[in-house]
Amino acid sequence: MSHRVGVLGATGAVGQRFIRLLDDHPEFEIACLTASDASAGEPYGEAAKWRLDTPIPDEVGEITVRATDPAEIPDDVDLLFSSLPSDVAAEIEPDLCAAGYVVSSNSSNDRLADDVPLTIPEINPDHLDLIEVQRDERGWDGALVKNPNCSTITMVPTLAALTEFGLERVQVSTLQAVSGAGYSGVTSMEILDNAVPHIGGEEEKMETESRKLLGEFDGAELSQHPADVAASCNRIPTLDGHLENVFAEFADDPSPGAVREAMASAPSADLPSSPDPLIHVFGEDRPERPQPRMDRMRGDGMRIVAGGVQSTAEGVKYDCLAHNTIRGAAGASLLNGELLANEGWI
Amino acid sequence: MSHRVGVLGATGAVGQRFIRLLDDHPEFEIACLTASDASAGEPYGEAAKWRLDTPIPDEVGEITVRATDPAEIPDDVDLLFSSLPSDVAAEIEPDLCAAGYVVSSNSSNDRLADDVPLTIPEINPDHLDLIEVQRDERGWDGALVKNPNCSTITMVPTLAALTEFGLERVQVSTLQAVSGAGYSGVTSMEILDNAVPHIGGEEEKMETESRKLLGEFDGAELSQHPADVAASCNRIPTLDGHLENVFAEFADDPSPGAVREAMASAPSADLPSSPDPLIHVFGEDRPERPQPRMDRMRGDGMRIVAGGVQSTAEGVKYDCLAHNTIRGAAGASLLNGELLANEGWI
Amino acid sequence: MSHRVGVLGATGAVGQRFIRLLDDHPEFEIACLTASDASAGEPYGEAAKWRLDTPIPDEVGEITVRATDPAEIPDDVDLLFSSLPSDVAAEIEPDLCAAGYVVSSNSSNDRLADDVPLTIPEINPDHLDLIEVQRDERGWDGALVKNPNCSTITMVPTLAALTEFGLERVQVSTLQAVSGAGYSGVTSMEILDNAVPHIGGEEEKMETESRKLLGEFDGAELSQHPADVAASCNRIPTLDGHLENVFAEFADDPSPGAVREAMASAPSADLPSSPDPLIHVFGEDRPERPQPRMDRMRGDGMRIVAGGVQSTAEGVKYDCLAHNTIRGAAGASLLNGELLANEGWI
Amino acid sequence: MSHRVGVLGATGAVGQRFIRLLDDHPEFEIACLTASDASAGEPYGEAAKWRLDTPIPDEVGEITVRATDPAEIPDDVDLLFSSLPSDVAAEIEPDLCAAGYVVSSNSSNDRLADDVPLTIPEINPDHLDLIEVQRDERGWDGALVKNPNCSTITMVPTLAALTEFGLERVQVSTLQAVSGAGYSGVTSMEILDNAVPHIGGEEEKMETESRKLLGEFDGAELSQHPADVAASCNRIPTLDGHLENVFAEFADDPSPGAVREAMASAPSADLPSSPDPLIHVFGEDRPERPQPRMDRMRGDGMRIVAGGVQSTAEGVKYDCLAHNTIRGAAGASLLNGELLANEGWI
Repeated sequence: MSHRVGVLGATGAVGQRFIRLLDDHPEFEIACLTASDASAGEPYGEAAKWRLDTPIPDEVGEITVRATDPAEIPDDVDLLFSSLPSDVAAEIEPDLCAAGYVVSSNSSNDRLADDVPLTIPEINPDHLDLIEVQRDERGWDGALVKNPNCSTITMVPTLAALTEFGLERVQVSTLQAVSGAGYSGVTSMEILDNAVPHIGGEEEKMETESRKLLGEFDGAELSQHPADVAASCNRIPTLDGHLENVFAEFADDPSPGAVREAMASAPSADLPSSPDPLIHVFGEDRPERPQPRMDRMRGDGMRIVAGGVQSTAEGVKYDCLAHNTIRGAAGASLLNGELLANEGWI
Repeated sequence: MSHRVGVLGATGAVGQRFIRLLDDHPEFEIACLTASDASAGEPYGEAAKWRLDTPIPDEVGEITVRATDPAEIPDDVDLLFSSLPSDVAAEIEPDLCAAGYVVSSNSSNDRLADDVPLTIPEINPDHLDLIEVQRDERGWDGALVKNPNCSTITMVPTLAALTEFGLERVQVSTLQAVSGAGYSGVTSMEILDNAVPHIGGEEEKMETESRKLLGEFDGAELSQHPADVAASCNRIPTLDGHLENVFAEFADDPSPGAVREAMASAPSADLPSSPDPLIHVFGEDRPERPQPRMDRMRGDGMRIVAGGVQSTAEGVKYDCLAHNTIRGAAGASLLNGELLANEGWI
Repeated sequence: MSHRVGVLGATGAVGQRFIRLLDDHPEFEIACLTASDASAGEPYGEAAKWRLDTPIPDEVGEITVRATDPAEIPDDVDLLFSSLPSDVAAEIEPDLCAAGYVVSSNSSNDRLADDVPLTIPEINPDHLDLIEVQRDERGWDGALVKNPNCSTITMVPTLAALTEFGLERVQVSTLQAVSGAGYSGVTSMEILDNAVPHIGGEEEKMETESRKLLGEFDGAELSQHPADVAASCNRIPTLDGHLENVFAEFADDPSPGAVREAMASAPSADLPSSPDPLIHVFGEDRPERPQPRMDRMRGDGMRIVAGGVQSTAEGVKYDCLAHNTIRGAAGASLLNGELLANEGWI
Repeated sequence: MSHRVGVLGATGAVGQRFIRLLDDHPEFEIACLTASDASAGEPYGEAAKWRLDTPIPDEVGEITVRATDPAEIPDDVDLLFSSLPSDVAAEIEPDLCAAGYVVSSNSSNDRLADDVPLTIPEINPDHLDLIEVQRDERGWDGALVKNPNCSTITMVPTLAALTEFGLERVQVSTLQAVSGAGYSGVTSMEILDNAVPHIGGEEEKMETESRKLLGEFDGAELSQHPADVAASCNRIPTLDGHLENVFAEFADDPSPGAVREAMASAPSADLPSSPDPLIHVFGEDRPERPQPRMDRMRGDGMRIVAGGVQSTAEGVKYDCLAHNTIRGAAGASLLNGELLANEGWI
């Protein structure tokens, strides 16, 4: 069965990824594209400064772009994907939900709100039931669902596979690609022959979103996972793919082999865009992997890739990687949309 | 007073840095340059494929290169700097020391030997007295002194400034420049639009060398510092300058301000190549620093640069940076040479 | 109908591209893979240090690698693709041809020999008949066919489309990707934040190969095209895709529009790997294209992309681009193989 | 004798280069710094987001920034350096000249005006006398002098050295660094693993400015040099230093040796910032040079570097390089300022 979907902020970098991922999607059909007022009325093919290395699907190029305004969204749209700037999203997403739309959003606003599900379908699909709480509290007919930040989503699936060992503590350093900052976010003068040990707000996002994602939902309230999480975030001169070094500690003291095994057997979700296996794990014979350019497109950019698992004095260290604009942004929202459809919320 | 010095392995990348640093040195005068047998007999200007962006000093270009063979070293040379490949160094350095030469070596062999001083003059100059033990045990007239690996030397001065707080634990991730692997060590296909989460042997070096450098020498034996050290090492597409993210824990619980203050007041050594201050510390208003391209040449490439100091649940995190082929290699050996001269060992 | 083919030098960078391109090929089936003696006897999956970002096809990974020795090639192989180092190729290719094999080679040896066809199937398929001359002169049962150098093949299809205007003169500057030098050909220290205005032998190849490719074959002898060709070749820090700036002059004085039209209508060949259209031409509204990262994968890496056509005082200038390891190497040999099959030479 | 100078647009990328070059200048003393209204009133050290890798000179950091307004410039300033955006410069520079100031400007407006000297002191110092014409026509007490665009200034000194051979024709391709577009001009997404064959307006600038620079001034009128000039301009992923491939033709047919000799003996100007020799020429034994990272800082960034001189069928080809933000921008204006002082215009 097919659902009619819209993309809010369709001309931006993440918006373009949505367009590509939705092309030939088995369940979703693009019914509406919005952008800023300046682009409203233009065909998408002209409004979007297309930057992906495959062309705009023909029929999408001809869709007339609408203003990002609740009044402009057709009534028969079942689901809206949002990649709006977070200040714009903070204003318009509640209006859309109040108007009855279900919104799967990549924008960072409201991710930590008590009644907003922050979900990765393979990890915490049950958090989606927070929608009941949300509707009660806000009186909405629609619903707002968020996916986490790209640096968080790279690490959390590996941690989720390891919570069975009694996860107590996480320290993570990231090597993040420039596309995470949007098309114009990092200038070439800033990053060529350089690295920047700071990405505004990113460390806090990793620390707080991880604990929410791994937390338990008892049907009424969501509790944070008790593990300590500390992050140090860096920008490096790569285009796509966030690489992360994780140091983790556990109540039980799992061997590197047990850690690899747990990650490799982490279950996929039964949804069109969920990769199987969820996590590709490189063994001891390939300590130099994962690498951004070599591994970011595994599972069409939706797979998590791990490696370098080794013991430390008090735990294990390992590396993980994901494609930041697919698994870490547009693909994450899309997967949440598939979960919403599968669970009957749309 | 001037000492006559030689450089072993003078045509390589680190060897070239030695040449530049020794040009106009107030205490040292180049008396001899060695390279592989293939280059022996040629003028240095022809034997070296010079790759630095300032020209070879004229008089150095005319020096005739000798084979790296004890029999070739003039008797009146006081001090030899070594940047030989570690397997070559492991064979020839002991012979040179037995023949009475004092060798300040950047090669990685023997760094962890019980009777070989591994020194950073500003941090553990007293370890130099291990030379007495070394001479007793080995029957040498000369001496062998080592400096640590480039990734270790970037972090240890910051940790040394913090041991007063009861250092218990360190976890570090590195973002290392390609020059650390030598001129041909990293291919462009390997690193453009990429990063590699593994550098062979590097993590072990950081873990073991750090504990030796911070250890105590009681005049007879050297004890390792008890802190746990775990490292995760990455190569990124930068030319020079290693950037490192440190997570540290202490018995006392120093505030970020106390950490910054302790680093900023770490004493310089009274030697020509020791920078004052030893560590430049960026404050809270510059969270985006240090950066490799912007900060690697501070103190002529000999200063350590730190920043991003923040509390975590169980300690502090911060970033540090140093120029890997100056402070982390040739400059480190040179500084050890200056200490050897100052303490009367040559 | 399917032909059994072999790949000589199958573990190298171009060899790996052959493996990928031959996977699921409609006419060719891999029957034999060769490499250096050191790898002979190993399964291909172990012998090849695989560096492409899609995995080795399973069944190919299990093929046992053979030594690159005529005695090792099975008799029922119809066609051999060669990406051997040119000195190795110069020795072994004639032996293979004498032994009756047809060889489609990417190696640079013998490209300019009078009796060796140097072909691009869309441009000069009739040159293939030089095989008759070759067999007469050399007494071979097999045949040797070459494709041009990657920088030549990027430009020549655009020039071929313009010979109708009386091509008299070409000056070209190239901006070439590092993969053109093989996996280890360009070190990162050499090219990061840099460019190199020299690639050994490349300029001569562009000048001589272009004139041979555009020359006329009268059934007995091949004459060079009379146009002057001068090239200046540069290496830049891109991974794949050669970009070239062409200044061309003609007896007739075609307008930019006529030049664009002639390029855009250049005919494709009726072969599986020939893209249709052969050349994608960007118009005046997109002066910033073609770009290596955005345009190299057009037509699965086999299409030529042109743009920036403008008048100069004495002719026109324009830019062209092709994927150097697909259209410029493995794909070029493969396409020649398809032409050999189609014309009945195998 | 010392002159008091001002810098208009002092906080931008070129402005910062001016500050550094003026530090310890033997003839000029900074008396005034201007920026946009938003920065007026702040100390320069706070107003400028300093991005060079040496610190702001202390006393400069404390200068209070003024608005870029003729009324704000002190009367006793002798000379103004301008690196304003060209639209701002087009408005304010004439007012300043009318008010009696002498302006040495790097901005692109008015470079081609008949009565505005476009000068490189080593090449066409006599064009400075156009100031007489300018004052007659415009009734100014001050004067406006321009330096050419960074890509033009890289090539023209080499051409000027060759005009004696009867220069008839030039075709040039450029490989330009990202700093030429200003700090935020090129995004990292645009240029990593890529190149862009178009820089808006750049080709026209090279074609027209070159002919003006090489033209003759008879005391009343300036004639353009008759050579045809065609340019193709590309942006590549390097930080600083424009590399250019030149194809040139001459009435006389100079040998490569004669070309090298003529370039190497091109005279320096007797001014503090003019390097001697003006052009460093690499010989046949170094075909891989000049390279941006290795050669851009020769002569403190003011020297032109050439190499790769070879014959073509109808002329010669060669490569040239200069530092685009020193010789190509701030240093060019500074040198014009030194010429203005030396010739008594201030």
